[in-house]
Amino acid sequence: MIPAKGDSRVMRCDTLWRKARLATMAGDGPGIVEAGLIAAKDGRIVYAGPEAGAPALDAAEIVDCDGRWITPGLIDCHTHLIHAGNRAREFELRLEGASYEDIARAGGGILSTMKATRAASEDELVASALPRLDALIAEGVTTVEIKSGYGLDTPSEIRMLRAARRLGEARDVRIAATFLGAHALPPEYAGDADAYVAHVADAMLPEVARLGLADAVDAFCESIGFSAAQTEHVFEAAKRAGLPVKLHAEQLSNQHGAALAARYGALSADHLECLDTEGIAAMARAGTVATLLPGAYYFTRETQLPPIAALRAARVPIALATDCNPGTSPLTSILLAMNMGATLFRLTVAECLIGVTRNAAAALGLGSNIGTLEPGKACDLAIWDIEQPADLVYRMGLNPLHARIRSGR
Amino acid sequence: MIPAKGDSRVMRCDTLWRKARLATMAGDGPGIVEAGLIAAKDGRIVYAGPEAGAPALDAAEIVDCDGRWITPGLIDCHTHLIHAGNRAREFELRLEGASYEDIARAGGGILSTMKATRAASEDELVASALPRLDALIAEGVTTVEIKSGYGLDTPSEIRMLRAARRLGEARDVRIAATFLGAHALPPEYAGDADAYVAHVADAMLPEVARLGLADAVDAFCESIGFSAAQTEHVFEAAKRAGLPVKLHAEQLSNQHGAALAARYGALSADHLECLDTEGIAAMARAGTVATLLPGAYYFTRETQLPPIAALRAARVPIALATDCNPGTSPLTSILLAMNMGATLFRLTVAECLIGVTRNAAAALGLGSNIGTLEPGKACDLAIWDIEQPADLVYRMGLNPLHARIRSGR
Ligand SMILES: [Zn+2]
Ligand SMILES: [Zn+2]
Repeated sequence: MIPAKGDSRVMRCDTLWRKARLATMAGDGPGIVEAGLIAAKDGRIVYAGPEAGAPALDAAEIVDCDGRWITPGLIDCHTHLIHAGNRAREFELRLEGASYEDIARAGGGILSTMKATRAASEDELVASALPRLDALIAEGVTTVEIKSGYGLDTPSEIRMLRAARRLGEARDVRIAATFLGAHALPPEYAGDADAYVAHVADAMLPEVARLGLADAVDAFCESIGFSAAQTEHVFEAAKRAGLPVKLHAEQLSNQHGAALAARYGALSADHLECLDTEGIAAMARAGTVATLLPGAYYFTRETQLPPIAALRAARVPIALATDCNPGTSPLTSILLAMNMGATLFRLTVAECLIGVTRNAAAALGLGSNIGTLEPGKACDLAIWDIEQPADLVYRMGLNPLHARIRSGR
Repeated sequence: MIPAKGDSRVMRCDTLWRKARLATMAGDGPGIVEAGLIAAKDGRIVYAGPEAGAPALDAAEIVDCDGRWITPGLIDCHTHLIHAGNRAREFELRLEGASYEDIARAGGGILSTMKATRAASEDELVASALPRLDALIAEGVTTVEIKSGYGLDTPSEIRMLRAARRLGEARDVRIAATFLGAHALPPEYAGDADAYVAHVADAMLPEVARLGLADAVDAFCESIGFSAAQTEHVFEAAKRAGLPVKLHAEQLSNQHGAALAARYGALSADHLECLDTEGIAAMARAGTVATLLPGAYYFTRETQLPPIAALRAARVPIALATDCNPGTSPLTSILLAMNMGATLFRLTVAECLIGVTRNAAAALGLGSNIGTLEPGKACDLAIWDIEQPADLVYRMGLNPLHARIRSGR
């Protein structure tokens, strides 16, 4: 109800979106409201629900949504968006039959990204990431997680994290920065991963934390990455620094990383193709989000599916993200990540939508601030020219975003 | 060389793009020219090649491309872009475990698209197709093939084809219209496919041809579609009408449709997952293009790959297209079709690029007019903000189009 001005029982707000259909993502399902209204004040939602049940509202600005759908602003909760170099040529060579050795000789692989990233200035890192960030923003993304992990020395990791913060100033987007010093072994530590991990845990991480540059700490726990013991070393340091942890776990092999992460109360364990029953139970107990990354599964032509049915049965919250990175997932479309989640992983439409909103927020420890349309949360909205929320998951390559609102504007 | 004005040896042109890198797609490979120049006059290319070897040119307009890459305007040579209705809900139900019978009961499947398309006006068909067409255009597509086949009666098929022509007026894009009356069996002919095929061949097709509404004739030759004999009936009618043919062949089973199509000198045989050696040899002899549709392969989770190596060995030209359609490939990104061609079908980068330019033009019988950057061809260009052509195939969800030129403007 929109009352006459001056009524003292009236709730004053800045902006009111009416004649909207809402997918609030609050509660268990997608939270569909057919004749919905959202009111915002000072950048926060003060009401989101049926137009009929709304309090009396007085708004400086009233937006008629013409029956359009509103979802929470989308959240990409796992990216390596900042990196220098270009690995398209490596992709081309692989298709022509080049072996991993050929690629390495031609200067490819993750170390090529490390070299290019080390050589890039902070300005260059920001500039090269902007087209990727803009592609996400164009699809209604309002929060993006960005990991370090291509610097692999203190100054370069810090430069990556500063660049991440700067992206949040260059564009109207919320950035969650994650320190991923334990991403790969830099060549100067070749043959001595323990020494590198000690350096990460005892020098890099404390310095990053002191500078306030990271919101969380991540590691790559894998047969070709770091061991569970080394991961634990990093997690201990994160604990000392008061930072929450997350983990690249069980992508290519079962290292029992998810269970380890759960033991440290991790926000999320990510990838999880090789996750076992114990890992699922541990995640369920700890409330650790399972962040699935179908873009990497698709691009690297994996065949081992993550244990979706078991995750679902154990009520582990499932998030979806692009994993945008130059080596295994050069994906900058959260809509396509949803389509891949449905098509390749057989997630339902509701699971995909919740996976890039409510559960993605939880995967970043931001569940109380973003991810649903509920009073008290930041007014981050995506307004869509669609007939139904399923359109967002079903289509491939069509962007039906009508408008994007960040913190109420 | 850009000479002084008034020089009589000078070739006059309208526009000149210089300081460009070209992938001309002329010759055998992608036709890379590092320091390239394109000149256009009256909408046609008069020169495309090295800046150094260019004739003396005088242009009304000179565009400095700053080292950007230019490819031919991209060509989507197989789409069902025009259709009414929305099958996102069907997609959602399938993910929730609904059977084909459940879907049919809920009003889904191709007949739901037929019903909605029959009920839609020509204006509605145009309006609903425009966002899909605009998505393709935004990626540098300058030519789109559009099939009928959801009307399945004379007035509705004609309405679809008129809508296709109108899309070419509503936007600056070249439309190739294909009559696909033999797409599915309409309910009024249930149990009597022969009678429907006779109607298509003896009534619909001649009428469509008389009105000049189709550039080619297609059919769906499949165990769940029309038999080889029925397809031949349609091809004979096309021959009488003087229209070239193409065919949906060997997608789900081997009906020897590709060999049949080749016998009729078909422009293309499309899908081809179940194509056999004889079919490949017949296509090679006839010069029939193999149009691969990885979007449908991906979306329907097929596992049988088309015989790429054998097609390559037989030198059958390979094209790639979106197959944009509501049931099996709701894809409106030609860039993503290329990525899927590489990732899922292991086509090389050059094969993907040639597949949406030179070979796609051949699949439409337009090889002498579009598809490469060569003198005499239409000046349809896509100008890209990329480091190398491989970027167009490698990335997923990033659109690096800088500018799109159609017929020189
Ligand atoms: Zn990752
Ligand atoms: Zn088709």
